Amino acid sequence: MSREVRTGSVVVDRIGELVTNDPTLGDGPLGIVRDAALVVADGVVVYAGPRTGAPAAEHAGRIDAQGAAVIPGFVDSHGHYVFAGDRAEEFAARMAGQPYTAGGIASTVRATRAASDEELAGGVGRLVREAALAGTTTAECKSGYGLSVDHERRSLEVAGRHADEVTFLGAHVVPEEYADRRDDYVALVAGEMLDACAPHATWIDVFCDRGAFDGDEAREILRAGVGRGLMPRVHANQLQQGPGVQVAVEVGAASADHCTHLSDDDVEALAASDVVATLLPGAEFSTRAQYPDARRLLDRGATVALAADCNPGSSYTTNMPFCIAVAVRDMRMTPSEAVWSSTAGGAKALRRSDVGHLGIGARGDLVLLDAPSHLHLAYRPGVPLVRSVFRAGARVR
Amino acid sequence: MSREVRTGSVVVDRIGELVTNDPTLGDGPLGIVRDAALVVADGVVVYAGPRTGAPAAEHAGRIDAQGAAVIPGFVDSHGHYVFAGDRAEEFAARMAGQPYTAGGIASTVRATRAASDEELAGGVGRLVREAALAGTTTAECKSGYGLSVDHERRSLEVAGRHADEVTFLGAHVVPEEYADRRDDYVALVAGEMLDACAPHATWIDVFCDRGAFDGDEAREILRAGVGRGLMPRVHANQLQQGPGVQVAVEVGAASADHCTHLSDDDVEALAASDVVATLLPGAEFSTRAQYPDARRLLDRGATVALAADCNPGSSYTTNMPFCIAVAVRDMRMTPSEAVWSSTAGGAKALRRSDVGHLGIGARGDLVLLDAPSHLHLAYRPGVPLVRSVFRAGARVR
Repeated sequence: MSREVRTGSVVVDRIGELVTNDPTLGDGPLGIVRDAALVVADGVVVYAGPRTGAPAAEHAGRIDAQGAAVIPGFVDSHGHYVFAGDRAEEFAARMAGQPYTAGGIASTVRATRAASDEELAGGVGRLVREAALAGTTTAECKSGYGLSVDHERRSLEVAGRHADEVTFLGAHVVPEEYADRRDDYVALVAGEMLDACAPHATWIDVFCDRGAFDGDEAREILRAGVGRGLMPRVHANQLQQGPGVQVAVEVGAASADHCTHLSDDDVEALAASDVVATLLPGAEFSTRAQYPDARRLLDRGATVALAADCNPGSSYTTNMPFCIAVAVRDMRMTPSEAVWSSTAGGAKALRRSDVGHLGIGARGDLVLLDAPSHLHLAYRPGVPLVRSVFRAGARVR
Repeated sequence: MSREVRTGSVVVDRIGELVTNDPTLGDGPLGIVRDAALVVADGVVVYAGPRTGAPAAEHAGRIDAQGAAVIPGFVDSHGHYVFAGDRAEEFAARMAGQPYTAGGIASTVRATRAASDEELAGGVGRLVREAALAGTTTAECKSGYGLSVDHERRSLEVAGRHADEVTFLGAHVVPEEYADRRDDYVALVAGEMLDACAPHATWIDVFCDRGAFDGDEAREILRAGVGRGLMPRVHANQLQQGPGVQVAVEVGAASADHCTHLSDDDVEALAASDVVATLLPGAEFSTRAQYPDARRLLDRGATVALAADCNPGSSYTTNMPFCIAVAVRDMRMTPSEAVWSSTAGGAKALRRSDVGHLGIGARGDLVLLDAPSHLHLAYRPGVPLVRSVFRAGARVR
């Protein structure tokens, strides 16, 4: 159901700044250790701390960081990688002044249904690889451009070949052929489609927003998914205020994604629950929309994740450093908060404790930067600073 | 005075979309040819057009673009590469809520003066190389962190080893030791410092803004430079409305750079002159400042260039694709306008006719994208889409 994890062993020495995200290992919420070493054995972190205390590691490749920074691999908890075609012309038209609506999804649905399994798998593989080269070591992938029983199931099977976490999003939009009978589509998603898809996914998601599904529809679908053993997550409050966040809290979702338009009650509900607020700066960037206010969420105590939301309509990026830079610029995050949210935050949004940090026992997912500090990911926007990437101790780049 | 140009020959075949910036060769202002080939012989473009008409080229490597897009190499007309140290902590503090002032320049001046020639040259070389790997084939570089006769001259000598165009910016700010006698500093810049620096530069520049130099000071320095054979360019209207643009027009500057805060008169003056308005999105991005309005300038008929403004204080990026994406998102440019402005626009801002386009006789500076269209540079923000780079026909990447 999710891609294989190849394991390896590696020692990274002479790290100028090691971000562990484990406050018991170093300073501050990022658990920063300076002049550090990191040892990964058979895929797992066995040492993260000062160089002087590092154990001798045998049979492991040694990397000299030469004073550069090491951070945990990015955990991108929100991606729509299974699709065919692109929508560059639609994007260019929108940038010339036309407003964005969700209507363009239909064109991707047509192209996706028409594509062969190999084309779809090739596309997912390319995008997951592109993300990995930019430091993403855990990637979530949703269906949602099939929108029929067979095409949704196929999308999930394809996703599972390359992604780490697979999410059933039959409730992305109501497809054109159900435009006049949306109740039938909701029943299909919560019934036959769910039956076909549940064996191929871990998560169930609903786009609960204007032009997609309302609160009652979202509840029905998510509860049906939970009944089939899937864990819920919700596309919530992207386009306007609405019931998405409240639904997410009610059903015990791991994450409410987008959170662009939040009432005070929404913010309080997120802060009082363990629903992660996953912010997707690429979507607002590429639709010229208002950004969510991460500061407001953080100041109330909500947990914030950042994800790339890779999709061909509203956020065709896989690049987490780009998302960090935009989140700092436009969502009132500090650089350190943004790095935490794109690693540990993403892991919390996927309910994963083995990734998103470099504490002892964590999976050996790490990024060696071409920079002395994690701050440079925001300080040097657009510059490719990812020098090397290891996943479970095995070299990706 | 500027870096050597190594030449080569190359044939790029099966180009899906060739952006020539030559309307006589293809469609629209970008002169786009589809299903194209490009031939560079001994550093110069000898053919740019349909595949079917391409001449047989001997003794040249052949690249199969496989349907991808080719654009001219980026012309980055505004860079401050000669410095030591970094200001990541200042950046992080600013992102945590402190307002930006030009004061931080003094810390870079101290670090630059303390650095060895080798350190400075190493830094310039690394940044120019970083830019080249992201598609920048022509780079301008300014002094301005030396601010003494010897340190400015040294900065220009170092710049000339790696950059294509060298600009004397003794009038960046008044250095601390002249704080109480700024008239003496202006006289120094326009006198002894200019005498020492003119042989090592092509351009003279003044930061004409709040906290830097006023209109009269800028005129005096620029006219002195012109008297010594340098061509003028001006940092104008970044922080507030002021005399910068008007000074640029008066002295016949090639470019007025920043242009963030413009009066209607400023816009009209730029449109009525051949002063290029060079916009620097990285600066507003990294200082959370209001962006300049490219649309307003374009709609009035002004020529707009985009540049990265690489410097350690307010825009520590070398990445032109990033600048394109931000300019489209936040300055009301279309993707095609932004690509033109970062290639042909930059060339106009440097008064260069040999670069910034791929017309016959142009220098063979080209970028092969990992994308079927130049639109993807804005459509896929943050994604490293530069697959190969050639400068004068010689492979850079």
